[in-house]
Amino acid sequence: MTRRRRIYEGKAKILYEGPEPGTLVQYFKDDATAFNAQKKGTITGKGVLNNRISEYLMTKLGEIGIPNHFVRRLNMREQLVREVEIIPIEVVVRNIAAGSLTKRFGIPEGTPLPRSIVEYYFKNDELGDPMVSEEHITAFGWAAPQDLDDMLSLALRINDYLNGLFLGIGLKLVDFKVEFGRLYENEEMRIILADEISPDNCRLWDAKTNEKLDKDRFRQDLGNVAEAYQEVARRLGILPEAGPGDHTAPKLVQ
Amino acid sequence: MTRRRRIYEGKAKILYEGPEPGTLVQYFKDDATAFNAQKKGTITGKGVLNNRISEYLMTKLGEIGIPNHFVRRLNMREQLVREVEIIPIEVVVRNIAAGSLTKRFGIPEGTPLPRSIVEYYFKNDELGDPMVSEEHITAFGWAAPQDLDDMLSLALRINDYLNGLFLGIGLKLVDFKVEFGRLYENEEMRIILADEISPDNCRLWDAKTNEKLDKDRFRQDLGNVAEAYQEVARRLGILPEAGPGDHTAPKLVQ
Repeated sequence: MTRRRRIYEGKAKILYEGPEPGTLVQYFKDDATAFNAQKKGTITGKGVLNNRISEYLMTKLGEIGIPNHFVRRLNMREQLVREVEIIPIEVVVRNIAAGSLTKRFGIPEGTPLPRSIVEYYFKNDELGDPMVSEEHITAFGWAAPQDLDDMLSLALRINDYLNGLFLGIGLKLVDFKVEFGRLYENEEMRIILADEISPDNCRLWDAKTNEKLDKDRFRQDLGNVAEAYQEVARRLGILPEAGPGDHTAPKLVQ
Repeated sequence: MTRRRRIYEGKAKILYEGPEPGTLVQYFKDDATAFNAQKKGTITGKGVLNNRISEYLMTKLGEIGIPNHFVRRLNMREQLVREVEIIPIEVVVRNIAAGSLTKRFGIPEGTPLPRSIVEYYFKNDELGDPMVSEEHITAFGWAAPQDLDDMLSLALRINDYLNGLFLGIGLKLVDFKVEFGRLYENEEMRIILADEISPDNCRLWDAKTNEKLDKDRFRQDLGNVAEAYQEVARRLGILPEAGPGDHTAPKLVQ
């Protein structure tokens, strides 16, 4: 088998050249990092689960008209996506106080926010992904005002839909991070959802017990990290089939 | 003399009850703090200079229709101001990269910004005055969207005017911080400029040499701090008269 050209390697995924122009293969690793990569580890089976969870959520979002880069899942750890020009802004939508917001404003974790709050972070590992405002984004040209408008309205629609979807399976969507890219097609440019949506970049709490079923289990050393991701997949009804040759496939929780 | 009631004491100023309802006396101290009060010191004569500089700039801004709290200077260190409900947001306008922006984005000090950038910081010493976005401000109710619109357009007008004024006296306005308050009058509320405008909260560089003539001389231990404030007053043509009994009045630089 000829080795594909590696386009980009991030902390949790690798992007390879796709089988046809304008496509990429997105490979999901088991690697996990937190606190701007100061903490590193492996969550066995995470890549398999995130590939499956992101496939499911991107497909569903596509069905309600949120354009996104997902084309189809290729195998346990890979999916075919459309090649976009990634906008270097992480869009975070928060419904309940958690993570950096609790420290920044001295608000206890778990406090429902007065309304959903959208934040932007500049994707730059060296600078520690600093929080930025629309002012910075447009002044430094990271996104045009119209791009930002599109990103904001897509992020809010995603929040509405995922809030409903997760509530339906007994999970609270505390917050999440999404990334967008520019897709050039038929001499037009549009902003579409890219990257992934998974417990790596969503905070998901059990609606009754507030048990954390996301990457905070890794960040906070709560244990049973893979099991939490698996539980999310289980509730979504999409547990991946474990092939006999795939020893990294997660075991079911009893 | 009866002691007036102290309403509020900040790091550089004290507010006393004023002689009539709806007024306050703003007293300018020589105390200086930096880096969220981790660095403390005294700049002899600073209070006298800032009282005079802020009087001048507020008066000039009033003349171009920027409503503000300044009523009149009372003496070397005090001015009469209108009592307002301070909005807990520091509005920063930046023209040239300096201070926290250089660290946050890895941009060298002195880099002209693509355009003026407005930032907001939540006034809260305990939290270290964190940078916030319009989202946070309106979601947490620190200011209404209409308040924020008013603050933004006033801040941009102030920037235009001060840019011109300082350029006229050979100074670059690198950035500045302003605060606003709500004034209730005739059953109406309007947003007016409050606090002070001085080298404590403006970065001012000599247009030719880039010599710093502001509080960065204190922050960065550059020496001649009072002399720098005095030079700004001198260029503005408003050096305070030194009374024979006022030993804190600054000496002139030769």
